[in-house]
Amino acid sequence: MKFSFKNDYSEGGHPDILRALSENNLNQQAGYGEDEYSREARVLIRKKINSPGADVYFVSGGTQANLIVISSVLRPYQCAVSAATGHILNNETGAIEATGHKILSIEKEDGKLTPEDIVPVLESHRNVPHQVMPKLVYISNSTELGTVYTLQELEDLSAFCKENRLYLFMDGARLGHGLTAEISDLTLEKVAQLTDVFYLGGTKNGALIGEAIVINNPELQQDFAFNIKQKGALLAKGRLLGIQFLELMKNDLYFDLARHANRQAMKIKNALKERGVEFLSDTYTNQIFPILNHELIDKLSGKFEFYVWKKIDDQRSAIRLITSWNTGDEPVNDLIEIIKEEL
Amino acid sequence: MKFSFKNDYSEGGHPDILRALSENNLNQQAGYGEDEYSREARVLIRKKINSPGADVYFVSGGTQANLIVISSVLRPYQCAVSAATGHILNNETGAIEATGHKILSIEKEDGKLTPEDIVPVLESHRNVPHQVMPKLVYISNSTELGTVYTLQELEDLSAFCKENRLYLFMDGARLGHGLTAEISDLTLEKVAQLTDVFYLGGTKNGALIGEAIVINNPELQQDFAFNIKQKGALLAKGRLLGIQFLELMKNDLYFDLARHANRQAMKIKNALKERGVEFLSDTYTNQIFPILNHELIDKLSGKFEFYVWKKIDDQRSAIRLITSWNTGDEPVNDLIEIIKEEL
Amino acid sequence: MKFSFKNDYSEGGHPDILRALSENNLNQQAGYGEDEYSREARVLIRKKINSPGADVYFVSGGTQANLIVISSVLRPYQCAVSAATGHILNNETGAIEATGHKILSIEKEDGKLTPEDIVPVLESHRNVPHQVMPKLVYISNSTELGTVYTLQELEDLSAFCKENRLYLFMDGARLGHGLTAEISDLTLEKVAQLTDVFYLGGTKNGALIGEAIVINNPELQQDFAFNIKQKGALLAKGRLLGIQFLELMKNDLYFDLARHANRQAMKIKNALKERGVEFLSDTYTNQIFPILNHELIDKLSGKFEFYVWKKIDDQRSAIRLITSWNTGDEPVNDLIEIIKEEL
Amino acid sequence: MKFSFKNDYSEGGHPDILRALSENNLNQQAGYGEDEYSREARVLIRKKINSPGADVYFVSGGTQANLIVISSVLRPYQCAVSAATGHILNNETGAIEATGHKILSIEKEDGKLTPEDIVPVLESHRNVPHQVMPKLVYISNSTELGTVYTLQELEDLSAFCKENRLYLFMDGARLGHGLTAEISDLTLEKVAQLTDVFYLGGTKNGALIGEAIVINNPELQQDFAFNIKQKGALLAKGRLLGIQFLELMKNDLYFDLARHANRQAMKIKNALKERGVEFLSDTYTNQIFPILNHELIDKLSGKFEFYVWKKIDDQRSAIRLITSWNTGDEPVNDLIEIIKEEL
Repeated sequence: MKFSFKNDYSEGGHPDILRALSENNLNQQAGYGEDEYSREARVLIRKKINSPGADVYFVSGGTQANLIVISSVLRPYQCAVSAATGHILNNETGAIEATGHKILSIEKEDGKLTPEDIVPVLESHRNVPHQVMPKLVYISNSTELGTVYTLQELEDLSAFCKENRLYLFMDGARLGHGLTAEISDLTLEKVAQLTDVFYLGGTKNGALIGEAIVINNPELQQDFAFNIKQKGALLAKGRLLGIQFLELMKNDLYFDLARHANRQAMKIKNALKERGVEFLSDTYTNQIFPILNHELIDKLSGKFEFYVWKKIDDQRSAIRLITSWNTGDEPVNDLIEIIKEEL
Repeated sequence: MKFSFKNDYSEGGHPDILRALSENNLNQQAGYGEDEYSREARVLIRKKINSPGADVYFVSGGTQANLIVISSVLRPYQCAVSAATGHILNNETGAIEATGHKILSIEKEDGKLTPEDIVPVLESHRNVPHQVMPKLVYISNSTELGTVYTLQELEDLSAFCKENRLYLFMDGARLGHGLTAEISDLTLEKVAQLTDVFYLGGTKNGALIGEAIVINNPELQQDFAFNIKQKGALLAKGRLLGIQFLELMKNDLYFDLARHANRQAMKIKNALKERGVEFLSDTYTNQIFPILNHELIDKLSGKFEFYVWKKIDDQRSAIRLITSWNTGDEPVNDLIEIIKEEL
Repeated sequence: MKFSFKNDYSEGGHPDILRALSENNLNQQAGYGEDEYSREARVLIRKKINSPGADVYFVSGGTQANLIVISSVLRPYQCAVSAATGHILNNETGAIEATGHKILSIEKEDGKLTPEDIVPVLESHRNVPHQVMPKLVYISNSTELGTVYTLQELEDLSAFCKENRLYLFMDGARLGHGLTAEISDLTLEKVAQLTDVFYLGGTKNGALIGEAIVINNPELQQDFAFNIKQKGALLAKGRLLGIQFLELMKNDLYFDLARHANRQAMKIKNALKERGVEFLSDTYTNQIFPILNHELIDKLSGKFEFYVWKKIDDQRSAIRLITSWNTGDEPVNDLIEIIKEEL
Repeated sequence: MKFSFKNDYSEGGHPDILRALSENNLNQQAGYGEDEYSREARVLIRKKINSPGADVYFVSGGTQANLIVISSVLRPYQCAVSAATGHILNNETGAIEATGHKILSIEKEDGKLTPEDIVPVLESHRNVPHQVMPKLVYISNSTELGTVYTLQELEDLSAFCKENRLYLFMDGARLGHGLTAEISDLTLEKVAQLTDVFYLGGTKNGALIGEAIVINNPELQQDFAFNIKQKGALLAKGRLLGIQFLELMKNDLYFDLARHANRQAMKIKNALKERGVEFLSDTYTNQIFPILNHELIDKLSGKFEFYVWKKIDDQRSAIRLITSWNTGDEPVNDLIEIIKEEL
C-alpha cells in the first residue's frame, strides 16, 4: 500500500491516548463532560492559557465546533466574515448557513485576514436594515493553506475587532501546527488573550476525535452548554474527550506532536527548495504545496498518495503534501530521494 | 465510591473494542467513513438485517442521530409525532425544533405509540395550510420507560404509517436491550422491514460512542450523507466508529451485552417482586422503576447512586435503576441483599 | 348570500382608511417605513401609551408579528411558553418552530396564563443543558377564546415574569376588543407598562392589513429592524401601513371599532342568555361560543355562516360567532329573532 | 419638495386599484386567498401564461417571495446560485441564509447569468458530501442593473438547467419592465414555459403591495401553501392582493404601466446619449445609470432626488435614475432641460 500524504488524520490516536483510554476504561464516571478526566483537562487548559476564567468545552470535530460557536455568538441578522479559503466557506456543506447565518468572503492569496481586508466589508454593509451585519471574524491558524499568523498580525486584528465591536474567532483545527511553526512568535496564551473564542484541534494532531473550545470573552460564555447539547455534540461518555485532552496537554504532548509533523514537512520542503522548486504559498507548517511538473507528479503518484491541488499551466501543477504526528522518517526520506533523483 | 445504577454509559467501552482500536491504530485509512472498518461494518449490518439495499451511516450519539434523521426527512412544514416521554421532546434541548420542526406530543403511560394514539393527531391537523402536517412517527425501542414493542405492535404501527403516508422512525439508543428482552418477539431483521429508518445504539451498549443509522426506505436514502456533514457529525477518523461497530456486530457481541444488562436488571426486579414491591411500569429491559418507601431509598442511597424518578405519595417514590453491559454480579447481589434485609 | 359570522376579517378596511389611502396616494414618500405617515403614526402610538422611548414597527399580519418578535427575542436554546389555545401553537403552521424555537404548552380552560400555571413549567425545565430554557411568556388579549385579562391579572403575571427573568409578550391581534370589553379595567398604557413587547392588531379591527409592534423593553429594541427585513416583512410602500394606523389612532377610531364589534356580540350573547343558553366560555368580546342543539344549529346555518367549534354531546355543540367593526344591526337582529323563535 | 427618481415605489397604487379596493370594500369574502378576487386573478394569470396547470399565490413583497420560494424548493444541503448583483445576495439581510441555505455568487458585469457562468460553479462543487449542492438558479428580469434577458438567452439557460437538474427561478420584481423593454423579445408565456417558478412583481409596478408567485413545475407545487402560511405571508384579507392583481391583469394594465416607466427612462437616456454621456450599463428599462461629472450631479441634486451609485474617477460618478408607472412628463422634461443646458 502506498504511503499517504493526503492528510493528518489517516492514522488513529497517539499510543499514549490509546493506553490512557484502556487504563481508565472500566471505572464509573459521570456523563456529559462531568467526568473527572474532562474536569482535569479543563483545569490544565485554563492553566496553560493563564486564564482561570475561561470556559472550556470538548466536542468531536471541527465543523461541529465551528457551527456551534458561530451560531451561539451571532444574532439572527448578524454574519461572519472569513477569508475565501476559510474551511467554513467551502468545506462544511453550508453548516453555518444551515444555522441561519451568512458568511461574507474575502479573497486572500495567503488565507490570512488583516484589518485592511475587513474595512471594505464593513463599509459596504451599512445599509441598515437591508443588509446583514458583520459581527464575527473567522480566522484559522495555521490556515487552510498552511500559513500562520504572527503575534503582531494577531494583535492588530484583535485591536481592530475590538474597535469595531466584532468578535474574533480562531479555528484551531491545526493550532498546534500554527504555534510550533519555526517562524511563529505566537503562544497559546497570547491566542487566548487576543481572541474572544478559539479551539484547540485534537483530531488533526494525534487525538481520535476532539476539539477543545475555549471561550475567553465572558459575554459569550453564558449558557453556552445548551448550544452543545442542542446541536447533538454533547457526548454521553465525555470521558472519551477528557482523557484524550488530558494526555495531549500533560507534558505538552500536543505541541510535540505538531512540531514533529511540521519538521517532517519542512524536510521535504527544504529538499524541494534546494532543487529550485517553487511553492503555491510559503508555509512553515505540516502542509506544503510544491509546484511540480506533471511527469514528476505521476512518478510520485506511483509511490505516494496526495492531492493534486491546482493546475498551474500545461506542464505544472501544485500538489498538497501533509505530514502528521505519526509520519515517520522512512516515507519522508523515500520521497526526498525520488525528488533528488528526478530534479 | 458508590456503585452507580444511574445509567448505562458510566463505563468506557467493551474491552474487545479497546483492543481492536489499539490493534488497528497506526495503519493509514481513508477519512470520513471511507475506511475499511466502516465499510466492513456496513456490510455486516446489511447482512444481519438481510437488506442489501439499506444505507448505513455511523454518527456519534443519539441526539445527533435524531436531529439528522428528522431534519433530513421532513419538509419545512412537516412535523414529527412522539409519545410525550420521547427523548426528542424533553431531553434534547429542542434539537429538533432548532432544525425548524415541531414535535406533536401524545401522552402515553407506557411510552409506546399505537395507531389509535395517532389517529386523533391526524384528525386535528387537517386545517390546511394553517397547521403543520404530521409526517414522521418517532418511537423508541426499548422506550425511555424501559418498555418494548412486540412484533404485532410494530407491524400494526408500520401498516398504519404506510396507509397514512407517515414515515416510521425508531430511535434505537437501546435497541439491543429492546430486542433481547425476554418478552420480545421482535428481531433486528423485522425492525428493518417495518421501519423507514432506525438506528442501532452503541453508546448505551458497550461502545465509547456511536449509533448506526440504517435507512431502509429508498426515498430517504438520496443524498443523506450531506446532512451528516452539514450537522457536524461526519468524523474525520470514521475508523473510530467503524472499528467499534465491527466488533459489536461480529459474533453478536451487541446482543450479548444487551442481554447481560437486561439479565442483571431482571435479577433485581425479581427480588423486589418477591418482596411485593410495585413498579411504575412493567419492564423487561435494563431499566426498572421500583416504588419504594423513602426510608429504604435513603438506605440504598448510602451504597448506590441512582435517580429518584417520581414521587408517588408522602411515603413512597419510584426510583430508576439502570444496569449496563458491565454491571457485575457483586453490586447486583449487594443491592438484592439490602432489599431482602429491609423488606 | 348568507351573512358571515365566521370571523372579523371578512370585510375590507374602514372607509376612513380607504379614503386616506386615496387622498394621499400620489405624493412621493420614502420607502420602507420612513414615510411621513408611518412616522406620525409611531409618534401617536408612543403618545397614547405614554412611553416616548418605545419602538414601534408596522408589519402585515399576526403570524408575521409573532414569528419576528419571538425569533428576535430568544437565543437558540430558549423557548416560549403559551396556553394550549395560543395561536402560535396550533394555527400558524409551526412558524415559531421554523425559526428554531420550541413552544411549551399549558392546558387552560379559559386560554389565560397565571404565574401558578407557569411555575411547574419552570420547575420541570431545570435539567441544564438537556432541556430548553423557558424565556418568553406568550399571551393574547383578548384570547383565542374571547376572554380578557384584568389589570390585576396582568400585573401579577408581569411581576412574576420580571422575577423569573422571563419576557412577557402580548399578542394583540384583538387587543382593541380586549381593552374595550365591558369587564376590562386594563388600558393601552398599562399594557405597555406591563409587557416587554406587544402588538396592536389592525387586520381584525378595521385595517386592510397591519399590526403595530411596540417594544417597551430597551434590551429588546436593539437592531430590531433587521429582523423585520430578514423575515420579508418590511414593505417597500410602508405608507400602506402608516396611513392605516394613523387613521385608526387618530380620534381613537381603533377603540370605537372594537367597542362596536363587542357590543354586537353582547347583544347576541344576552339574547341567548335570556333563553337559558350556556356558553363554552364566558366572554365579553367579539367572540362568543354558545352551546346549541343541533336542530337550531342547522336552522341558523341556513341563514348564516359560522364555525361549529366543538361537539358537546349527541344533541349539542358549541358554535363560534364573531362580530366585526362592520357587523350591522340587521344580521344581529335577524339572528336574535330566530333564537327567540326557536328557544 | 424635490421630485424623486430614487425608486419605483415612491407613490401609492394606480388609481384603478384604489377605486377597485373602495368599490369592493364592504362585501364579505372568505379569508386567506379564498376570496373571489384572488380566485379570478389566478384564473386570469393562468390564462395569460397559457398554462392551466400553474399554481398562483399572492404575497406581499419581493424578499418574502424570494425566501418562500427558495426555502420551499431546496433540501437542507442544497443551495442557490445567483449573479453577484442578485437582490437576494446583498439586499435582503440574509433572508435566504436565515432559512438555512447558502447562495453561491457569480461576478457578472451585466447582472445576467449564462450556462457558461454556471459550469465552473458546478465543477467546483463536486466534493460530495463536503460541499453544498447547487440546485436552484436565481435570476432577475429586468435585473438589478436594469438589463434584460432575451428569449434566446432564457432558452439556453432553461435547457442548461434541465440538463443539470437545476431549478430555474426568475425574480420578477420588475418583470413588467423587463418584458416591455423595446429590445425584449420575451413574453410572459415564454417566461412561464422556460422557468420552474417565477413571480410577477406588483409593488414596483403600480400595486400598493403584492407579488404573484407562479409555479410551473408540478414537482414544486405540492403543499406550497404551507410555506406561505409558515413564513407569515398569508394575509387574512387576501382580497387586498386579489383585487390589485385583478386590476393589473385586466386589459394588460400591468404591461402598460411598465411600458410607461420604461418610456420615461428612455427619454432621459436618449437625451443624455445625444450629449455623449456614457452609461454604467446599457439598459432599456426603467433604471438608467448615466456617468456624470460631479458638478452636474450637484446641480441635479438641487432639483431631484436620486442615488449616486458608483464613483468612477475623481471627476465622475454613475448615478441611478428610476422612473415609475406614475412618473409624469414634467420632471422628465425638467431633467432633460438641465442636461441640455449643462452639457
